[in-house]
Amino acid sequence: MVRVGIVGISGFTAETLLKVFTRHKRAEVTYCASQSHKNQKLQEVYPAFKGALDITAGAFSIPRIKKTCDVVFLCVPHTQSMAFAPQLLKAGKKVIDLSGDYRFKNAAVYEKYYQVKHTDKGNLKNAIYGLTELNRQNIAKAFLVANPGCYPTAAILALYPLLKEGFVSEQSVVIDAKSGISGAGRKASLSLLYTRLNENISLYKPVLHQHVPEMEECLKIFAGQKKELIFVPHLVPLDRGIFMTLYVYLKKKTDSKHLEALYRKLYFHEPFIRLFIDGFPELKNVAYTNFCDIGMKYFKDKNLVVIGAAIDNLMKGASGQAVQNMNIMYGMNETEGLL
Amino acid sequence: MVRVGIVGISGFTAETLLKVFTRHKRAEVTYCASQSHKNQKLQEVYPAFKGALDITAGAFSIPRIKKTCDVVFLCVPHTQSMAFAPQLLKAGKKVIDLSGDYRFKNAAVYEKYYQVKHTDKGNLKNAIYGLTELNRQNIAKAFLVANPGCYPTAAILALYPLLKEGFVSEQSVVIDAKSGISGAGRKASLSLLYTRLNENISLYKPVLHQHVPEMEECLKIFAGQKKELIFVPHLVPLDRGIFMTLYVYLKKKTDSKHLEALYRKLYFHEPFIRLFIDGFPELKNVAYTNFCDIGMKYFKDKNLVVIGAAIDNLMKGASGQAVQNMNIMYGMNETEGLL
Amino acid sequence: MVRVGIVGISGFTAETLLKVFTRHKRAEVTYCASQSHKNQKLQEVYPAFKGALDITAGAFSIPRIKKTCDVVFLCVPHTQSMAFAPQLLKAGKKVIDLSGDYRFKNAAVYEKYYQVKHTDKGNLKNAIYGLTELNRQNIAKAFLVANPGCYPTAAILALYPLLKEGFVSEQSVVIDAKSGISGAGRKASLSLLYTRLNENISLYKPVLHQHVPEMEECLKIFAGQKKELIFVPHLVPLDRGIFMTLYVYLKKKTDSKHLEALYRKLYFHEPFIRLFIDGFPELKNVAYTNFCDIGMKYFKDKNLVVIGAAIDNLMKGASGQAVQNMNIMYGMNETEGLL
Amino acid sequence: MVRVGIVGISGFTAETLLKVFTRHKRAEVTYCASQSHKNQKLQEVYPAFKGALDITAGAFSIPRIKKTCDVVFLCVPHTQSMAFAPQLLKAGKKVIDLSGDYRFKNAAVYEKYYQVKHTDKGNLKNAIYGLTELNRQNIAKAFLVANPGCYPTAAILALYPLLKEGFVSEQSVVIDAKSGISGAGRKASLSLLYTRLNENISLYKPVLHQHVPEMEECLKIFAGQKKELIFVPHLVPLDRGIFMTLYVYLKKKTDSKHLEALYRKLYFHEPFIRLFIDGFPELKNVAYTNFCDIGMKYFKDKNLVVIGAAIDNLMKGASGQAVQNMNIMYGMNETEGLL
Repeated sequence: MVRVGIVGISGFTAETLLKVFTRHKRAEVTYCASQSHKNQKLQEVYPAFKGALDITAGAFSIPRIKKTCDVVFLCVPHTQSMAFAPQLLKAGKKVIDLSGDYRFKNAAVYEKYYQVKHTDKGNLKNAIYGLTELNRQNIAKAFLVANPGCYPTAAILALYPLLKEGFVSEQSVVIDAKSGISGAGRKASLSLLYTRLNENISLYKPVLHQHVPEMEECLKIFAGQKKELIFVPHLVPLDRGIFMTLYVYLKKKTDSKHLEALYRKLYFHEPFIRLFIDGFPELKNVAYTNFCDIGMKYFKDKNLVVIGAAIDNLMKGASGQAVQNMNIMYGMNETEGLL
Repeated sequence: MVRVGIVGISGFTAETLLKVFTRHKRAEVTYCASQSHKNQKLQEVYPAFKGALDITAGAFSIPRIKKTCDVVFLCVPHTQSMAFAPQLLKAGKKVIDLSGDYRFKNAAVYEKYYQVKHTDKGNLKNAIYGLTELNRQNIAKAFLVANPGCYPTAAILALYPLLKEGFVSEQSVVIDAKSGISGAGRKASLSLLYTRLNENISLYKPVLHQHVPEMEECLKIFAGQKKELIFVPHLVPLDRGIFMTLYVYLKKKTDSKHLEALYRKLYFHEPFIRLFIDGFPELKNVAYTNFCDIGMKYFKDKNLVVIGAAIDNLMKGASGQAVQNMNIMYGMNETEGLL
Repeated sequence: MVRVGIVGISGFTAETLLKVFTRHKRAEVTYCASQSHKNQKLQEVYPAFKGALDITAGAFSIPRIKKTCDVVFLCVPHTQSMAFAPQLLKAGKKVIDLSGDYRFKNAAVYEKYYQVKHTDKGNLKNAIYGLTELNRQNIAKAFLVANPGCYPTAAILALYPLLKEGFVSEQSVVIDAKSGISGAGRKASLSLLYTRLNENISLYKPVLHQHVPEMEECLKIFAGQKKELIFVPHLVPLDRGIFMTLYVYLKKKTDSKHLEALYRKLYFHEPFIRLFIDGFPELKNVAYTNFCDIGMKYFKDKNLVVIGAAIDNLMKGASGQAVQNMNIMYGMNETEGLL
Repeated sequence: MVRVGIVGISGFTAETLLKVFTRHKRAEVTYCASQSHKNQKLQEVYPAFKGALDITAGAFSIPRIKKTCDVVFLCVPHTQSMAFAPQLLKAGKKVIDLSGDYRFKNAAVYEKYYQVKHTDKGNLKNAIYGLTELNRQNIAKAFLVANPGCYPTAAILALYPLLKEGFVSEQSVVIDAKSGISGAGRKASLSLLYTRLNENISLYKPVLHQHVPEMEECLKIFAGQKKELIFVPHLVPLDRGIFMTLYVYLKKKTDSKHLEALYRKLYFHEPFIRLFIDGFPELKNVAYTNFCDIGMKYFKDKNLVVIGAAIDNLMKGASGQAVQNMNIMYGMNETEGLL
């Protein structure tokens, strides 16, 4: 039994992790640290866990973590993880960080997009980017996993085969993302009220979103291609999931069969990628699952591929993938707790 | 042209008032006071009014009101109106208060349910309860109108004919209300987040809600009957409206025809009451309107009438009715701006 | 491994069953019969099962069922199960029927409410009512289980303790239910369109709903009390779940502690009942689970208990409870596949 | 008083027209033809009009139209208008067609995208494309107005200034549209059920949607530029409105001030276009209005403009614009009934 600690419990990623671990047969949550819910039972914070979880949140304590945990998930906001991770690593614990703090090799990029000094540059080079499908071998040996952002997970998985095989033209790729509201986090803010978001659509942080350099850097490393991405995220009125539409011009003409072969070759054995060639996924089919559904259609006269990709932002886009990574780090079945 | 002032503009009732007045032909908003949006243009606070309203919110100022307004709508939270109303009345302005501050003749009831001392008891006796259909003549001459609560508006209009004509048995009446989220107001609170309320139903303040004594007092005054009401409100995931189900046992057997005659007699000329005898209204048909739709079915073997009543909580349940009252106070067509 | 057959796959109950069985460790779906999807792969009918289920629907065939199934779930519409059940029983298979066809001992009641002749009266007396918590011992030995309706499941579990212990007064109990849209089934009907139901609330079949005699009969049998119920169901705009508010007058004054003791005594060991005494459940906490959450508040001066009960209509209200029953019939852990 | 006839009343466009005309001071609906609701009162078809409309639908009858109407709105499905329009024109009536039947000058394009023979080619050349802002003078004299599609209305208004002034680069423009469900019409179809669409996002008819040639042809005519558009529409779970995101690469570098001047110059006097330069609209602000809200941001290093455009699909995207056109055809104030 792997003993799991969670730091930060008031957000959706922690809530989702807790839920996944109630189904996990080879790991269990043994420790939770929380500032805002200190000394509160998790069942009171999340009545949905009534009868399923009997843990009380404590203050963050390295001595306690030393005694009770093998691995710690950091579910604190961006810019706060880098205060916790070095202490945990020094205490000999493995760390899976769900924030953006360790996703860039280059601290300058981080500092530009997250608008703070990086205070743990030393660990950036040790951090392993946790996009499971592209980085399994490194994840297996990792001590510090930087779990990917939700948008990068979908975008990279959708684009990777085309880019890696050199199909994509010079032109930049447009990525238009639609996210459910849980993607905006849980904060007492007028902009997140039901009455504001219901029956509404809005866009935010167009082009300059902090996930853009994450996508571009990762595609460069894994697909070996520098590629300009134009990314615009939108909020749509539903709870869970991201639906992403990608507009990709190709270098030379091809056909659907070819594209299908390309994606099948790279993703055939993937337990969490489902392909819909010559068709498109629907968001609802991935809600509350760890799947990434990818579909596409090729328009020959325009030499354009339109790709639709769908994930649950809190599962494959955050906590589900975090557990997938943990499973790999401990040599377990990758799908444990996730199907 | 009646010159209208609004005090408090950050809530839904003020927003709805502003919208109604853009359509009103014989009144216009000439002044707005706001603490939180002082010196802000209303178009910035509410982009939906872009191009339609060109007003800048100011601090509350009696001298300015004296110069610019004939009537002032108070859209501040409960317990705050009683600080503004006496000043406005003293300045010779008519006041329509959308809070609960002047709805009770008996200050002790107010103080019990709203948990504060009443600081303007002197004006309680002058305040006219603004349930238009039952109190037109007094409203016409009023200087201070206490606009009814949203739940009382629907409940009283639904029950009044049966009670007035002495049909209702001794047994208490159960009123189960379902409210859209705007009924809970606009506050930066975790309990009002989209992710909390979407795909959810909850109940709040069962039986002891402050609208219960308002309903009971009003029915006693207008229908001449003391009647115990069991009232439980629920939040359901939609923007606008209240759907209310009332369970009323009768004194003696009757039939649908009779009930229909009863309601038609009392409401036939009402421009904002629509009857669905032997059937029920649907909430969507009253959304964004000032109608109160009332339907019912009589079950003879149980001697029970089930009534369904639907209103838009911000129109007939608040700002729409407030304008309806203003129209009457100024001798205008009652439906002006409201159809 | 228990081999499971499902007859009828186009409805939500079959879809939910299929989902539950992908998580079940001691049973697997080996056979599906469908008229409308004959020879179609289930993955095509339900893309959400892609990669998880590899079954092709066939025509209903007793010889195939004989070879491939131990137990058969009937997911066909009301009035159709009674054509399948006798054949299956004769073939020696256990049957769990999710329709209303075998829920009444008295065929006349069925015929009145479902408006058809009952064509398999012989099996009515053998059918075991599948409200797990109240009928475990009989379910364990059953060959034919009549799985309860969704509303009766919540209503009976909420009322049973009070009724059984003789607390409830003579007065009828009002039950106001709010159901998500999946409760209305999947039919190509204008009344079920998104645009009709979104931002809407409506009520249907007040007082005379076919679930009323089911509730009353069951309470008489299990709690030993004849009790008149006034039941009105409403449709509210969300996918899953029933929230039910019950208004129960008591015979004599009591207190919250007492009520708590009463419910705890009867439900303490129940894995799927969660109690919220002096508080209320929220629907979202039971969505996609097999829990029935029950909360209540006692109002001493009115001698009234208001109960809130929440279930997922497709899990505890249909397919989840059906699997719970199957687990018991085969001596498995009752919670297998359901937590 | 202009006397208005409506042919086809079961769809959302007719329902919206009826609503607009209840507020219109210089026109009134005097005649409605409907096959599916023949001899039914409109109040029964649409209970929301109870008390506001007293019309009974009849069969389509030229003699009756001759006597009772000045102008006829065709609200029948695509491919059916061309059967009605020639008869109405011959009878001397003005026609505003809300279908796609008269939107193309070239019948071959129509026949390719709508998959039927065009049976009234003679009137194609007389039809005036009803995108009000770009075609007012011709609309004023028109006998047959082809009211634009919902997507073209938003797309053309968003792109027109940039294209007309020659700012747009060679590269094709990507248009990613998100539509509320009413855009899909009212049909008893499984694909339009609440349970299918709620909490879901899907895309449909990517790139080859019939509105693409309409957009391209119109931009060529009005902006004088041939421009390739890549258009993908999505369904998102809300009732009303289209939010459209356009990705436009420019020919040469510019700045926000310049873009603002460009749009203000062309749209300054437009009563229904509202600009949000260096910002973006939100869908909710245009719901139930005739506004087209357009916002944008310029990214200098990429020489890219991201435009967000929002309309209510049934108002500015259909019936609102149809009335706007009628107002112009009869020399009335263009905003009559629409503010």
